Amino acid sequence: MQICISSTGLYLPPRIQSSAELSNLIGRSEEWILSRTGVHQRRVAEEGMDVLAAKAVLATIGDGPRPDCIINASLTPVQLIPDSAVFIQKALEWEGVPCWSVHATCLSFVVALLNASGLIQAGIYRRILVVSAEAGTPWRNLEQPESAALFGDGAAAALIEQSQGESAVLDWIMYTWPEGSELTEFRGGGTRRPPGHPETSSEDNLFNMQGPKVFRMVLMHISQVLRTLFERNGLTFEDIDLFILHQASGPGMEAFVKLGFPREKIVNIVADHGNCVAASIPMTLAIANEQGRLRRGDRVLIGGTGAGLSIAFALLQW
Amino acid sequence: MQICISSTGLYLPPRIQSSAELSNLIGRSEEWILSRTGVHQRRVAEEGMDVLAAKAVLATIGDGPRPDCIINASLTPVQLIPDSAVFIQKALEWEGVPCWSVHATCLSFVVALLNASGLIQAGIYRRILVVSAEAGTPWRNLEQPESAALFGDGAAAALIEQSQGESAVLDWIMYTWPEGSELTEFRGGGTRRPPGHPETSSEDNLFNMQGPKVFRMVLMHISQVLRTLFERNGLTFEDIDLFILHQASGPGMEAFVKLGFPREKIVNIVADHGNCVAASIPMTLAIANEQGRLRRGDRVLIGGTGAGLSIAFALLQW
Repeated sequence: MQICISSTGLYLPPRIQSSAELSNLIGRSEEWILSRTGVHQRRVAEEGMDVLAAKAVLATIGDGPRPDCIINASLTPVQLIPDSAVFIQKALEWEGVPCWSVHATCLSFVVALLNASGLIQAGIYRRILVVSAEAGTPWRNLEQPESAALFGDGAAAALIEQSQGESAVLDWIMYTWPEGSELTEFRGGGTRRPPGHPETSSEDNLFNMQGPKVFRMVLMHISQVLRTLFERNGLTFEDIDLFILHQASGPGMEAFVKLGFPREKIVNIVADHGNCVAASIPMTLAIANEQGRLRRGDRVLIGGTGAGLSIAFALLQW
Repeated sequence: MQICISSTGLYLPPRIQSSAELSNLIGRSEEWILSRTGVHQRRVAEEGMDVLAAKAVLATIGDGPRPDCIINASLTPVQLIPDSAVFIQKALEWEGVPCWSVHATCLSFVVALLNASGLIQAGIYRRILVVSAEAGTPWRNLEQPESAALFGDGAAAALIEQSQGESAVLDWIMYTWPEGSELTEFRGGGTRRPPGHPETSSEDNLFNMQGPKVFRMVLMHISQVLRTLFERNGLTFEDIDLFILHQASGPGMEAFVKLGFPREKIVNIVADHGNCVAASIPMTLAIANEQGRLRRGDRVLIGGTGAGLSIAFALLQW
């Protein structure tokens, strides 16, 4: 698909929570947190995800015109109805601009990027803004130190446009294995454990993650997914200029190195930001872009893993 | 976009709740319900939305091969994480098939249809299954008789494929006006009124709808949206063969007649099914298809209104 990510933008909530500070809340030492998660600090939002998202959108758009459409690609909603895209649009005061949400847990941004690319390629819209914002730190389960130490808040966005040059989505691959559906959960918020229902426990309304099991399941599948993608494009790891990955955890990022991704080509923000759920991928992209690590013509692999379990990658020519 | 809806399917939960039965629960007479909502009966699901969805998918696919991808386009989730698409796929036992969710409240199906069409047109996938399933009747607010009398449960799906003939999405129009964000709400389920939070009231965890205000807001905008769509396609209402609309309410359906839609061309299922939220549009489509009302080459207008407020229509050549 001949599309181009013409701009990216980032918004970081100002409050930083260090792992030293968090260690008191979860009853584990700072060293324990660093060795298990690799996260030194994370942002903790005091604003809603709609406000974070709007700020990331404005950072992306700058003085440019409004986009034709907004796709919200976040996990933690403002409320169930209307969908969060409406509240982001409301915060922007962009009356009329159509908007909706795409939900694929931590892969929401790449899935939304794919959907946006299809609509641009088909000529439905010319400029689509995809934004991910997470303000889910209040939902960390402090009784589950390993997952509680992982998560952080943040927001980032990208503007997708028709490509004037060589920029394109060269390929796309995605699989979902629902045997992983109970490994990363927020069991509340739906009809199974409804909010306010007497049988819904307080733990149901917090993030719940069995990290080591997720990790094993990812390792079981990811090599084959990558092999399929690389073989059908006649590429090797060495042919990729930059890897923009979901920042699942420190050990998760190390696993990509062990798989053969050259370390210096992996943009790693997990130590400073933790796992920002759906916002991790666009935050990594925006930070790489700020650092000048993305050059037109480069081959960029963007994707990773998400609760489900899903694995997805888009192969871009930047 | 050269795509074709090659198959549709429906699943109706067996339990029927008549308006006579409902009248006792909401303290209004059957006549009151009929005059305000036009709903004689609605289905009430005893299964989860994932099970309803899987049954609608199987009714759509029949003996055919699995789709390349599933897009869940429903409003009431199974739980917050993973997204409901994963649970639908799990119920189908279609290991590996990629899946995600699109959320645009009552317009989720048409928005997902649009996204799917873009991906097919761009050659990313060849066969995409879009499914909407709602099992939200336990979330009716019985203290709010007018909205409680409206809602019903149900599920329907559609298979989107590359077009071999003239079938296509001819045009698309969508606007979102967030000034309507408080008129149709489920305030719970997100970070604003978190599940289990002491300040979240039991009413926050129920559907809340200010029907007359929504109605006035729709009337303020819809003529202009339709005029824009028809003018740029050189069409009049008479050129449309069939109208597949969100079944907001009996009076809402009548409003389309007053706008100039010929009554006999509007597929109206609201009396038998109520407002099934995101499932209303595909249920209407599947029922029209079952009844033989959709012929290849026909011009079909599909869309309507959704919480936000959003208005969207896809103009199809069937």
